[in-house]
Amino acid sequence: MASIKELNYTPNVLAKSIFKRESSTVGLMIPNLSNPFFNQLASSIEANLLKRDYALFLCNTNDEPEKERYYIEQLASHRVAGIIASRPLCSKPYLDAKIPTVSFENRISEHTPSISTDNYRGGFEAFDRLYETGARRILHLTGPDIFEAVAERRMGFEDAAKRRHIVPQVIHFEQDFREDMLSVSLLNSIDWTGLDAVFVFNDIAAAFVIRHLNSMKIRIPDDIQIIGFDNSYIGRLLFPSLSTFEQSPKEIGLGLVETLLALIQGETEIQTEIRFKPKWIPRESTK
Amino acid sequence: MASIKELNYTPNVLAKSIFKRESSTVGLMIPNLSNPFFNQLASSIEANLLKRDYALFLCNTNDEPEKERYYIEQLASHRVAGIIASRPLCSKPYLDAKIPTVSFENRISEHTPSISTDNYRGGFEAFDRLYETGARRILHLTGPDIFEAVAERRMGFEDAAKRRHIVPQVIHFEQDFREDMLSVSLLNSIDWTGLDAVFVFNDIAAAFVIRHLNSMKIRIPDDIQIIGFDNSYIGRLLFPSLSTFEQSPKEIGLGLVETLLALIQGETEIQTEIRFKPKWIPRESTK
Repeated sequence: MASIKELNYTPNVLAKSIFKRESSTVGLMIPNLSNPFFNQLASSIEANLLKRDYALFLCNTNDEPEKERYYIEQLASHRVAGIIASRPLCSKPYLDAKIPTVSFENRISEHTPSISTDNYRGGFEAFDRLYETGARRILHLTGPDIFEAVAERRMGFEDAAKRRHIVPQVIHFEQDFREDMLSVSLLNSIDWTGLDAVFVFNDIAAAFVIRHLNSMKIRIPDDIQIIGFDNSYIGRLLFPSLSTFEQSPKEIGLGLVETLLALIQGETEIQTEIRFKPKWIPRESTK
Repeated sequence: MASIKELNYTPNVLAKSIFKRESSTVGLMIPNLSNPFFNQLASSIEANLLKRDYALFLCNTNDEPEKERYYIEQLASHRVAGIIASRPLCSKPYLDAKIPTVSFENRISEHTPSISTDNYRGGFEAFDRLYETGARRILHLTGPDIFEAVAERRMGFEDAAKRRHIVPQVIHFEQDFREDMLSVSLLNSIDWTGLDAVFVFNDIAAAFVIRHLNSMKIRIPDDIQIIGFDNSYIGRLLFPSLSTFEQSPKEIGLGLVETLLALIQGETEIQTEIRFKPKWIPRESTK
């Protein structure tokens, strides 16, 4: 031990990986580091892996399938033990890489374990909660349909509206929140005076809406109520604070890590679809 | 080429690393993924590395020196080509690892290249700008002194106050922003009615202050002006939007990557200290 210390010896895990064809490193695909929900999820996954002595190789895909494919190749050539793909936008490269993989939100294949929130239920409940406060003119601001979770929230919202015989009002953002998404032309084009409430597809996009309404002196929740989705820390920082549906990074991070390690260890009885219930978090932006 | 494709061949970079003792992967230490500034910096570093065909191994140290040492070992055993250490809280483990390293903010050694913003100048200018609007009762909310950049902002603020014959008022947050740092007991303990202005050590902490003042119906900037530091995206999301000093993730990320690659390539003429000027970004929270 003394000579190991003296020689400043580092076990060469690369050499081990080559011979054993395995490593204690896991790759994580994150679509958008600027979205507080995804950086909370990354932190949770990392903490859970660290406890089990796995290091994390974090790849920021920026929702670009090309970058995702590049990183899958990088992870494969580094012989990672497994991949956690959050919101993957491709399937074949994962399947071709033949590395144990689990996904969050978008599904890779029917055999690839997937964890997500019951987003349909969240969207349905968002409409109903607003309806029950007396709101009738309710807008849903949604994101791109390629994000399955976002599309499911929209479908839940639309079905709840139809059940109440209300024609759903839906406007699409072209992408998820980005640092440079500060053009408020979409928000400027909306006739807010004709609305009682808005359900926004995630908290960070809802933060833009709150900022916009504040700057127009529209009172929240008196004139317009707002509901977000995620319960990321941003919602508690806003004024008024944001009512939202929680998907817990702790619960999801733990689920993804445990499922992946079961796969890596060759367990055969693995649930291929896990759905967590969204939890209603009432705050100041609703009545 | 056809048979390579058919066999689903992946070049084994691990094998290459072992023989060549190098790899095309760089490790990045990030102290706090929840701080928007640090995730913008991580994205910028990643984009710059990707252009040069280096993959990124992102390590979230959470400002814990123990985790930092664990990750240095992991990076060493994975034979990364270099390390970018942002706000490192230890020195010896980096020097012992003998891997080309550059740091952002805290310095590792006098020979280890370091990039940072001229934080002293930023703190000095923050006081002066507030003083020039007529503010005299100016508070500085600062963070822990182990963060050199934060301590330098405080020293600049204090020196500017003394030059104007004003006794500087300074209160310390015990740590940088964390998702769970939502106890506002510190903010509740402050007598805001006795203040004209507050300079906060970073934008994400300033977001808490703005939320707190809004909830107490204190008008910004009429009753109290606020200045942050970083120019992360959060400042544009707030109402009122946050006046701040910019340190550019684009400029810093590029500087860190270019300096590291010069080190990796064995260049000898490397500047060991690069300082960027902070840039004043006036918005709605100041007069």
